[in-house]
Amino acid sequence: MKGWQRIFIGKRWEHEIVSTLDRLAEPLSAVEELLWEAVESRVESVSRMARHLLSAGGKRLRPALTLLSAWMAGSITQKAILYAAVVELMHTATLIHDDVIDKAVTRRGKATVHTIWGNESAVMCGDHLYASAFSRLAEDGDIRVIRAMADASRRVCEGEILELELAYRLDLSESDCLRVAQLKTGALIGAACQVGVIAGVADGRNPQRLADALRHYGCLLGVAFQLVDDVLDMESTEETLGKPVGSDLLEGKITLPAVWTIAQLGPEERERWWRLAAQRHFPEQDAASLARRAQETGQLDRVRAFAGRIARQAVSYLDSYDGVDSDRRWARDALRDIADYIVKRRA
Amino acid sequence: MKGWQRIFIGKRWEHEIVSTLDRLAEPLSAVEELLWEAVESRVESVSRMARHLLSAGGKRLRPALTLLSAWMAGSITQKAILYAAVVELMHTATLIHDDVIDKAVTRRGKATVHTIWGNESAVMCGDHLYASAFSRLAEDGDIRVIRAMADASRRVCEGEILELELAYRLDLSESDCLRVAQLKTGALIGAACQVGVIAGVADGRNPQRLADALRHYGCLLGVAFQLVDDVLDMESTEETLGKPVGSDLLEGKITLPAVWTIAQLGPEERERWWRLAAQRHFPEQDAASLARRAQETGQLDRVRAFAGRIARQAVSYLDSYDGVDSDRRWARDALRDIADYIVKRRA
Repeated sequence: MKGWQRIFIGKRWEHEIVSTLDRLAEPLSAVEELLWEAVESRVESVSRMARHLLSAGGKRLRPALTLLSAWMAGSITQKAILYAAVVELMHTATLIHDDVIDKAVTRRGKATVHTIWGNESAVMCGDHLYASAFSRLAEDGDIRVIRAMADASRRVCEGEILELELAYRLDLSESDCLRVAQLKTGALIGAACQVGVIAGVADGRNPQRLADALRHYGCLLGVAFQLVDDVLDMESTEETLGKPVGSDLLEGKITLPAVWTIAQLGPEERERWWRLAAQRHFPEQDAASLARRAQETGQLDRVRAFAGRIARQAVSYLDSYDGVDSDRRWARDALRDIADYIVKRRA
Repeated sequence: MKGWQRIFIGKRWEHEIVSTLDRLAEPLSAVEELLWEAVESRVESVSRMARHLLSAGGKRLRPALTLLSAWMAGSITQKAILYAAVVELMHTATLIHDDVIDKAVTRRGKATVHTIWGNESAVMCGDHLYASAFSRLAEDGDIRVIRAMADASRRVCEGEILELELAYRLDLSESDCLRVAQLKTGALIGAACQVGVIAGVADGRNPQRLADALRHYGCLLGVAFQLVDDVLDMESTEETLGKPVGSDLLEGKITLPAVWTIAQLGPEERERWWRLAAQRHFPEQDAASLARRAQETGQLDRVRAFAGRIARQAVSYLDSYDGVDSDRRWARDALRDIADYIVKRRA
């Protein structure tokens, strides 16, 4: 079962699920085709690296959001398919660079690009995907979309750098954590929805209001998504997650579940954490033990509930759309389902 | 003395040099101002890293080419200044990633970004510069320029990856070397000239022919520039170059001077090189000795002469422009001077 299909499985209205899946299946495979075509290069190893990544699959959450946003705005046009592919290309570029930075060994169950081809090629392959994405957008020529995507990728970088800057900072506030999530994850998901609206709207109509609303929806959805990711990093077992429990901590990343759990510790334990932070090294054992504590003291549930509130806030932006057409209501309901899925998902 | 000023020093016509310098001084400092402004970010360490790089200076060859191209096409407009800054931002992004890849310790006499802030931040800082450059272009809104720049940065990545792919390949042909240089260096310099023309042309006129001509000029100029860079890597002493002689070889990069010098070796020595290549490691001593051989056997002069022919080919594209206006002839002469300088320069 494909990742994006999982989103709609287990919902109450069986026939409605089927119809959502049906409607997304065809455009999503068109996106897939475009992705494979876009990474072709006259330099053989460029194509090889990109194909390796694409073949690992992934949820394709961002393209699905672009398509549903287009659908909600009007219809899934050729442009919507193009923008969905571009969004995924940019996301993939970020993943490659992330994996180099985090020294990750596997991604989506496959060896990471840099472990096979080396850091050098991996960095350049990421750059190439960025540049290819912008080339595609430049060919298309809609300056609003180029603006949105350039802006989003700038924010993603800012988020990644901010996160590095805040590494080992146990005194992070809730709003620091939210700011990182907003930049690192929210910005691109927001843009994915925004450009979907631009692509889907019928000529002549001004989609500004809906585009803004869906950008807000996407940004908040991204924040919720990131918070649940942070929870999963502490909640899962090594088998289901494919990396050690508490691996964020091993890289010095202080996430909201960590902040809240550390706040609950006794003074002696807290002192130990500060001491480790000063050495800029959290041993695997401590990371695993904090993850256990987070679970036992209910902090993980608390963060998930918090993510749920943010997701509901995201959904509230959908309600500003007042379409009568039942077709478009359908897209809106699917976007609601995704918000729901994102909070509830397990590794 | 600034790098770009060096280009015009030592020319025959004293008063003409002064006037070229005068004419470029003001727009180049406007470019500089824009560069510093463009790297500002709400994330403090993003700005700090970028400012560190910018303060190291550099020749600013690419912005000078953009400005002169604009001048040749009409005049140095605000857009020309913007595009010149964008070109330099993209070039700077490439340098950061290059330094991470090459594990370079210094750049332009200052510690490299990754040695101070770590590889993680350096990769992200490069990404951020790319994204900021595209953001600026998106704000400006000229789709032809976005297309040219996206295309160029795609090629630059292809060139870098091709070079990695061809590492330790002693059987490189002359055309392999030229292809790497064309992608890695020529593409961006070609685009720098092309977008200069677009910026400089008066409204209503179609700059296509001149833009194409100057793009060709820039591409070939870039190839010549790269070949001379490859010569300098073998010709200079460690003191003037700031890195070991033959450092390209130490990274496995097979440049044209190396190809031609190895072809001149006796069978026993060639066998030794093949053996080292198979181990993917050229010891420092061998690299230095090959560099000496390249110099002694006249291969460095031969490559420089070859670069000279390519530079003359570049200049021939300038002649397709038939301006009567003496002001514009001036810009053309300056572009000729740069081609001249590029071939003759010493480290």
